[in-house]
Amino acid sequence: MTDNPLYPTQAIIEAAHERILPHIHRTPILTCQTLNEISGAEIYFKCENFQKIGAFKARGGLNAGLSLSSIEQARGIATHSSGNHAQAIAYAASVVGAKAYIVMPDNSPQVKVDAVQGYGAKVTFCKNTPEERQSTVEEVIAKTGAVFVHPFNDYAVIAGQATAAKELIEDSSVVFDTIMAPVGGGGLLSGTGLAVRYYSPTTKVIAGEPEGAADAILSFKTGKIEKAPYVNTIADGLLTYLGDKTLGIILNHVEDILTVSDTEIIAAMRLIWERMKIIVEPSCAVPFAALLKSKERYAGQKVGIILTGGNVDLGKLPF
Amino acid sequence: MTDNPLYPTQAIIEAAHERILPHIHRTPILTCQTLNEISGAEIYFKCENFQKIGAFKARGGLNAGLSLSSIEQARGIATHSSGNHAQAIAYAASVVGAKAYIVMPDNSPQVKVDAVQGYGAKVTFCKNTPEERQSTVEEVIAKTGAVFVHPFNDYAVIAGQATAAKELIEDSSVVFDTIMAPVGGGGLLSGTGLAVRYYSPTTKVIAGEPEGAADAILSFKTGKIEKAPYVNTIADGLLTYLGDKTLGIILNHVEDILTVSDTEIIAAMRLIWERMKIIVEPSCAVPFAALLKSKERYAGQKVGIILTGGNVDLGKLPF
Repeated sequence: MTDNPLYPTQAIIEAAHERILPHIHRTPILTCQTLNEISGAEIYFKCENFQKIGAFKARGGLNAGLSLSSIEQARGIATHSSGNHAQAIAYAASVVGAKAYIVMPDNSPQVKVDAVQGYGAKVTFCKNTPEERQSTVEEVIAKTGAVFVHPFNDYAVIAGQATAAKELIEDSSVVFDTIMAPVGGGGLLSGTGLAVRYYSPTTKVIAGEPEGAADAILSFKTGKIEKAPYVNTIADGLLTYLGDKTLGIILNHVEDILTVSDTEIIAAMRLIWERMKIIVEPSCAVPFAALLKSKERYAGQKVGIILTGGNVDLGKLPF
Repeated sequence: MTDNPLYPTQAIIEAAHERILPHIHRTPILTCQTLNEISGAEIYFKCENFQKIGAFKARGGLNAGLSLSSIEQARGIATHSSGNHAQAIAYAASVVGAKAYIVMPDNSPQVKVDAVQGYGAKVTFCKNTPEERQSTVEEVIAKTGAVFVHPFNDYAVIAGQATAAKELIEDSSVVFDTIMAPVGGGGLLSGTGLAVRYYSPTTKVIAGEPEGAADAILSFKTGKIEKAPYVNTIADGLLTYLGDKTLGIILNHVEDILTVSDTEIIAAMRLIWERMKIIVEPSCAVPFAALLKSKERYAGQKVGIILTGGNVDLGKLPF
């Protein structure tokens, strides 16, 4: 694995952090006495919901975009996404002065399309199937010559996402027993696994995953990329399955994956809204839901949780 | 006015701040590039929605509670409120180890009653009219001997509320052109007027008020305590009219009062939720709504806005 010169070593993650720092927020770490009392743990929330574009994905997108050669940047950047990665690439392209070509499902919420176009990206619509997304982005690339940036199975993206946990560790005065992140395709989780290995090696990395997209927990058991037995969850940022690069890192650097139901996700999300007065999206509440579900396991522990994003449609809230 | 030894002089506000500091959060000041672009101003939001009890009222309640003599504290503290002042007094009483007797309307949301009782306060219910509230709290006081703390027309409360603007000024590196706060009974607004006078005398103080509770703007014009021509607004923290103490200070230290409609309040609230990813209650969005309504007036200005609170019923959102 480490034969690949792009594999996120400590030096590569440090270079990524330096590269993106001028263009991201060093987001705050918040604590909440009431949530500590409710959970029995001492929780430090790394608030990536306050990040540029409202989610941690700005980190990976920026690192990928800024790592391209000037010739590649001149060709433009392409990706497909209905969610935060679309905005991340559109934002990264605007930072590096490149064109962005984003393939989005034709049922994407208008607010997300507006946000992507607001960064000057060109949006191409397609039907909302993995095959249609892939073939459409391939057409766009064939036509434009743009460079494809995968949402998670890309070492530059993983190195960028790793900087969230790096900051959480650097900006906290405690040594964490556990650091938690959600898992979808595994870009954040693998980056978190590496950052913890490098900067806080005694800390355990635990992932939260929705029961309605329980692929990573299967992959974690079999050691292969698995698909979820069924996909049905409110945590729409976590629907996808792992890639070979994220799986490899997760198998080596993640302690466990815990699953939670949508009811538990919504309850955890509501607690964060009501008690912390901050807005997090359903996917973002998954690790805290997992912690609440396994209170005894984390009682008295110092736990870092990466709050991944705050992009919700206020017209469609689950409460 | 200043003949009253309790009148909030600079020294009295400083003593209040020192008194309450161990028991409050020194809340963060947040900025948002998108809201700056939308408004044309450079806005610094003082986030009292992150304050203890979820609102700035913890400051005034604490200062009042901590200023009582030990004999008074032993008698207990009484007030009437359906909102944040009830929680503030319950919290303050728990801090000083006093009993709290809170009169609440019998249609108060259960979540607010639970919060007040969570601090160990004794709740007495009454019908939701000003007369019933007053007579019920008088009965409670007659029976218990508790000391009454008025929600706003009280110099100790005003001195406590003044510390929010004091921190905003102290913790910002800019000199504000304008500082804005909402006005209900005027406790926060009068405290803000005094703090600005003492700590940033070139800054103008502007209030925001709902059209559906437009009493302060009338009082500001006539110089007398006026009632609103009608009361009908989503900003349920701003329904009440001024008291003699708050009116006196407001007439001397506030530049102007701007009114906004509920539609404007809801739109401003939604912008703060969506762009800043933080939860504010409708009353809290009133000054930002007023700024958006008068963009030309504040274009290019450095504006401080006190975000007063984040206690909303997530089951009853206006969007």
